[in-house]
Amino acid sequence: MGRTSDAREKILSAAQTLIELRGYSALGVAEICKTAGVPKGSFYYFFESKEALALAVIDEHWAGQKADWTRILNEDAAPLDRLRRLFEETEAGQRAGQQSCGAVSGCLFGNLTLELSNQTEAIRMRLQEIFEAQVEMVDSVIAEALERHEVTVTDTREAARSVVAQLEGQVLFAKLYNNTQRLGSLWGNSLALLGGHAAGGVAAGV
Amino acid sequence: MGRTSDAREKILSAAQTLIELRGYSALGVAEICKTAGVPKGSFYYFFESKEALALAVIDEHWAGQKADWTRILNEDAAPLDRLRRLFEETEAGQRAGQQSCGAVSGCLFGNLTLELSNQTEAIRMRLQEIFEAQVEMVDSVIAEALERHEVTVTDTREAARSVVAQLEGQVLFAKLYNNTQRLGSLWGNSLALLGGHAAGGVAAGV
Repeated sequence: MGRTSDAREKILSAAQTLIELRGYSALGVAEICKTAGVPKGSFYYFFESKEALALAVIDEHWAGQKADWTRILNEDAAPLDRLRRLFEETEAGQRAGQQSCGAVSGCLFGNLTLELSNQTEAIRMRLQEIFEAQVEMVDSVIAEALERHEVTVTDTREAARSVVAQLEGQVLFAKLYNNTQRLGSLWGNSLALLGGHAAGGVAAGV
Repeated sequence: MGRTSDAREKILSAAQTLIELRGYSALGVAEICKTAGVPKGSFYYFFESKEALALAVIDEHWAGQKADWTRILNEDAAPLDRLRRLFEETEAGQRAGQQSCGAVSGCLFGNLTLELSNQTEAIRMRLQEIFEAQVEMVDSVIAEALERHEVTVTDTREAARSVVAQLEGQVLFAKLYNNTQRLGSLWGNSLALLGGHAAGGVAAGV
């Protein structure tokens, strides 16, 4: 059984790498198994379909990212400092990915949203849940900042959506230009979106 | 020759529809020709490869969108009003697409950026040029608003990038949730990003 569960991990890991490199649609089960070094029979032992595999890749990636976000956004620091740390770690993560594979791979969830959300409802629903969870985590931090009178927005949920949208848009550009410096404007832009203390044309100064 | 050039248009039109529905990687030349109602031989008469077709689809789509953006951003109105009109027309365009095909298809350029920019350099370069052109058009309007002291940003190019990033991020959400109302926050968010007159927590009020 030890080797069996090892095969599942190998398939998941190979699939995540291949999806980040080439997207989901271009992949075949045979290629995933070859990259993973497992026989094709193993695939259908663990996953009933390629879609089931994609959902498992999404879940595993989110489990890791959610743990990171939870750690950063619950640190012992002022709320806006924690938000800033989230952007810094996002930039560092994209830079590390770029160094290891030569290209900024972007956000797996954003990539799959634009590639697949109109094709499979199961994947659309899962991605919606993940983005809702991200927005809720950012919302909590903004609400704390609002209690401390450090931001001026009143609809913290809507503001959190705009911050996550800005994150996804800038990650798209980071991928397009293969340049993580695009992410350096996230902090200033978010302050501007939140009506933060240093806001008002911050986007320009970063 | 009339029929020949007609076949090229049919292939382009079928390819654009199929790419919007299912992305680029999942498509085969045979399916494109079947949808277009032209023999497969015609395809290679007009396009040397699937990549060449993708570039032609991108160019044709941009020619139309560029004409729209140019018209809107050069209207006889205050610069920020023109920017607001751009967002309103973007939302209307996505809504029309949703009504005709049942789902918000998003931005063809954003979709292809996340699907393909790390796979083909020719497509990456073309998409970079298009986004640069979009940023430049938005930059011009922001610079006009700055001259009129209606915004407080100083680096208008960087601010324009943030506005286009916000647009792409919100279009991503509109596609994910199949809901164009997500785009309603673009105007308030852009004012906040630009340090516009009504800014400071605008994101919340929209």
